[in-house]
Amino acid sequence: MSGMKEERTIVLMTDFGLGDTFVGQMKGVIRSIAPSAVVIDLTHAVSPQNIAQGAFLLGKSLPYFPAGSIFVTVVDPGVGTSRRAIAVETAKHIFVSPDNGLLSPVLQHEKVVRCVRISESRFMLPVSSSTFHGRDLFSPVAAHLSTGLPVAELGQSLDPGECVRRDQPACSLSADGKVLEGIIIYADHFGNLVTSIETGTILEPKRWEVECGNISPMPLSLTYGSVPEGAPLAYRGSSGTVEIGLRNGNAAQSLGLQPGDIVRLKRT
Amino acid sequence: MSGMKEERTIVLMTDFGLGDTFVGQMKGVIRSIAPSAVVIDLTHAVSPQNIAQGAFLLGKSLPYFPAGSIFVTVVDPGVGTSRRAIAVETAKHIFVSPDNGLLSPVLQHEKVVRCVRISESRFMLPVSSSTFHGRDLFSPVAAHLSTGLPVAELGQSLDPGECVRRDQPACSLSADGKVLEGIIIYADHFGNLVTSIETGTILEPKRWEVECGNISPMPLSLTYGSVPEGAPLAYRGSSGTVEIGLRNGNAAQSLGLQPGDIVRLKRT
Amino acid sequence: MSGMKEERTIVLMTDFGLGDTFVGQMKGVIRSIAPSAVVIDLTHAVSPQNIAQGAFLLGKSLPYFPAGSIFVTVVDPGVGTSRRAIAVETAKHIFVSPDNGLLSPVLQHEKVVRCVRISESRFMLPVSSSTFHGRDLFSPVAAHLSTGLPVAELGQSLDPGECVRRDQPACSLSADGKVLEGIIIYADHFGNLVTSIETGTILEPKRWEVECGNISPMPLSLTYGSVPEGAPLAYRGSSGTVEIGLRNGNAAQSLGLQPGDIVRLKRT
Repeated sequence: MSGMKEERTIVLMTDFGLGDTFVGQMKGVIRSIAPSAVVIDLTHAVSPQNIAQGAFLLGKSLPYFPAGSIFVTVVDPGVGTSRRAIAVETAKHIFVSPDNGLLSPVLQHEKVVRCVRISESRFMLPVSSSTFHGRDLFSPVAAHLSTGLPVAELGQSLDPGECVRRDQPACSLSADGKVLEGIIIYADHFGNLVTSIETGTILEPKRWEVECGNISPMPLSLTYGSVPEGAPLAYRGSSGTVEIGLRNGNAAQSLGLQPGDIVRLKRT
Repeated sequence: MSGMKEERTIVLMTDFGLGDTFVGQMKGVIRSIAPSAVVIDLTHAVSPQNIAQGAFLLGKSLPYFPAGSIFVTVVDPGVGTSRRAIAVETAKHIFVSPDNGLLSPVLQHEKVVRCVRISESRFMLPVSSSTFHGRDLFSPVAAHLSTGLPVAELGQSLDPGECVRRDQPACSLSADGKVLEGIIIYADHFGNLVTSIETGTILEPKRWEVECGNISPMPLSLTYGSVPEGAPLAYRGSSGTVEIGLRNGNAAQSLGLQPGDIVRLKRT
Repeated sequence: MSGMKEERTIVLMTDFGLGDTFVGQMKGVIRSIAPSAVVIDLTHAVSPQNIAQGAFLLGKSLPYFPAGSIFVTVVDPGVGTSRRAIAVETAKHIFVSPDNGLLSPVLQHEKVVRCVRISESRFMLPVSSSTFHGRDLFSPVAAHLSTGLPVAELGQSLDPGECVRRDQPACSLSADGKVLEGIIIYADHFGNLVTSIETGTILEPKRWEVECGNISPMPLSLTYGSVPEGAPLAYRGSSGTVEIGLRNGNAAQSLGLQPGDIVRLKRT
C-alpha cells in the first residue's frame, strides 16, 4: 500500500541554461512517464561543457538532498560520439549521466552499490536525436527509475573504477604539512571565487594565510563582517572549500583572478 | 473517486524572463485557484515580443508533454489593445493565449476540437491590469480549466482558421525537388543556429549539402563527432530542423550568421 | 485525517540568481524535511543586496499567493554578522527573513499576529555555514513551519515595530495635493522603469502628468496602445505604481533614466 504513490525526487543538473526549451522538454518527458515524481533544478548554469565544475557542484550538493533522490546530470560535450551513458546506484542516491567524469566525486566518495552501462532502449524515447540525450535518454530513464525500475535492468554492469576520471581539480598538501595548494574553479553569482582547497581538516583557521595572484596574503576569515567594506577576504565557503571574496563587492571583477589560477593556503 | 485529486499539468511559455516577479506571481495565482495543479516552465526566454520564435518553440515541444496538459503561452506585444484572448482545445491539449499567431502551428498541425474567445470575466482576477494578462487573465483561466472547467464556458466559439497567422518562418521546396529553403529562426544557449528547414522528409542525409552566408557548403552531418574541433557543421537538430553549429564552439558568435538569414539545403 | 497530507506552499525570494546551486540546495533541504511542501520561486533576481527592491517586490506580490503560504526572503548583506533572523506571522502568511528591512512593507501594511527572533538551532541544519543562511537556517525553518511547527517555538517574541526600517522608497504628496513625488526603483526585464508612486488613490488619471528627467511631461496612459510605436509613456503598472515605458521598445536603455531618479506626478 505504501508504494501506491511514489513521490520520488528527480534532481536535474545541466549546462543547458534556461534560455531555451531544453529543460522544459526534459520535465515534460519526466511528467509523461512518472506523473508523481517531483523535479528539482539543482542548476542549469554549469559553464558550457565544463565537466570539472559540474562534478564539483554535484559532489558538494549531495548532502542536501533526501535519500532516494535520482540525479540526472548532463554536461555532455561527447553527445553523439561513442561515449557511454551510465547509471550509478549508491547507498543513498541514484545517478544517470554521460560517462565522462561528471560522476567522479560520487564514485570516489560515496558507497557504490551498482554501476551499469545504460543500453536498454525500451526505457528511452522511441525516436532519439543524436544531440539531446538529456531529453531522449537520461530523462526517460530517470523517470522509469522513479517508478521503481531497478538500476540493474538498464544494461550490463561496469567496474565503477573504470568510470572515474583523474583530472579533477586538485587539493594537495605539501610534504611538511604547511602548504595546501589548489585552484580557482569558478566564480559564483556574487563574484566570489570558489577554490578546490578543502577546509574540512583545518583545525585552527587563524593560523593559516591565503595567497593568490598579486593580492597580499590574507588570513582565513570566519565571516564577511571581519574585514572593512571593499576589502578582499578569504573564508570557508558554504561548500566547505576556501573562497575569495570582496566585502560588499565583486571579487571576480575586481581582483584580476580567474578560474585555473593557483591558490595556496600556508600555515603561519 | 478517481476525480478526487486532479493533478493536471499546466505548462508556461512566455517572454517574461526570470529577472522579475512576473512568473512567480502567475504561479501564485494558479496555486491559489488550483492547489493540486503541477506547473512546468517550458521556457520564459522567448525573445521579447518574438511571436515567430514562440510559435516555433511551442510547436516543437508539444510531443514531449502528457495528454491533458494545459499550455499558457504569453508573448503579447498587443496587451492592452483590442487583441483577443483565445482558448484552443485539441485532441490532446488545451492552450490559452493572446490571438496573435502564437498558436498558428497548433491550429495548423493539431486536431482542433474547439476554439473560443475568452470573455467570461468570472474566471479572471477581479482586478485586472491592462499590461499583465499573463497573471490577471491567462493564469486564472488555465487554473480553472485544470479543475475541470469546460473550454466552451470561457466565451463564444471562433473559427480556428481565423486565428492562424500566415507569416510564420517558411520552409519551401523548389519545383525540381532539389532545394529546400528556409531561414535561421534563433540562436540557442550554445550558439547553435536553429533553422526552419524540416528534416523529416529527407531520406538520404548524405546526399544533401547546406549553404548559408559565406561559409563553404557543408554536408548534413549526423553528429558533432563527424567534424574536427572548431569546424562548422550542419546537422539534424533535436527539434527536427536543420541546425548550424561549431564543434565545441559558438556558431552564433563565430560564423557571422544571424536570425533571418536564408539557409538552403541542396541535393547533390 | 485531513491533516495527513499537508501541502503547504513555500515561496522563495532571494538575490541568489539561478547561476549557482544556491537555490537548488535550498529546495533539497526543504524537500528533505517537508516532502509534501510545494515550492514556488517568486524571483531570485533581486539585484544583489538591494533590500529596498526586495521589500518592494515582496509587498506587491503578496495578494497573489494563497493563505497559509510561507515566504523565505533572503537578501542578506549582513549574513555572518550579528544581524538577527526573524519570523513574522500575519493574518494570512508566515515570513522568515534576515531582520534588515526586507519585511518592512509586511510589518507596516499587514495584520501582524506574531514576530519572533529565530534562535532555536534544532530547527536549523546541524552544521551551518556563516555565509549561506538561506540554506542552513531559513530553508529548514520554513520546512518545519510547513509541517505544522508553531512560529512561537522558533525563539523569543519581538516588538514588530522594532523590525521596520524607515528608509524604504518614498511616495509623498505635496501640501496642496497637486504633486506626488517618488523615485525609480528598478528596471524590469522589458526595460520598463518601475517607480514608487502608488496609483491607488488617483481617481482621474487623465488629469495627471508625469515628469522625469529630460523627457517631456506625459499624460498617465491606460495602455501601451495609447501612444505611437517607439514613444515614451507613463502608465499604471501591474504592481499598482506608475511605470515609465517605451511602446515596443526598452525605456531603460533609451531614455537616460535610472534607479534613484526622481519622478513627479502633477495634477493639471
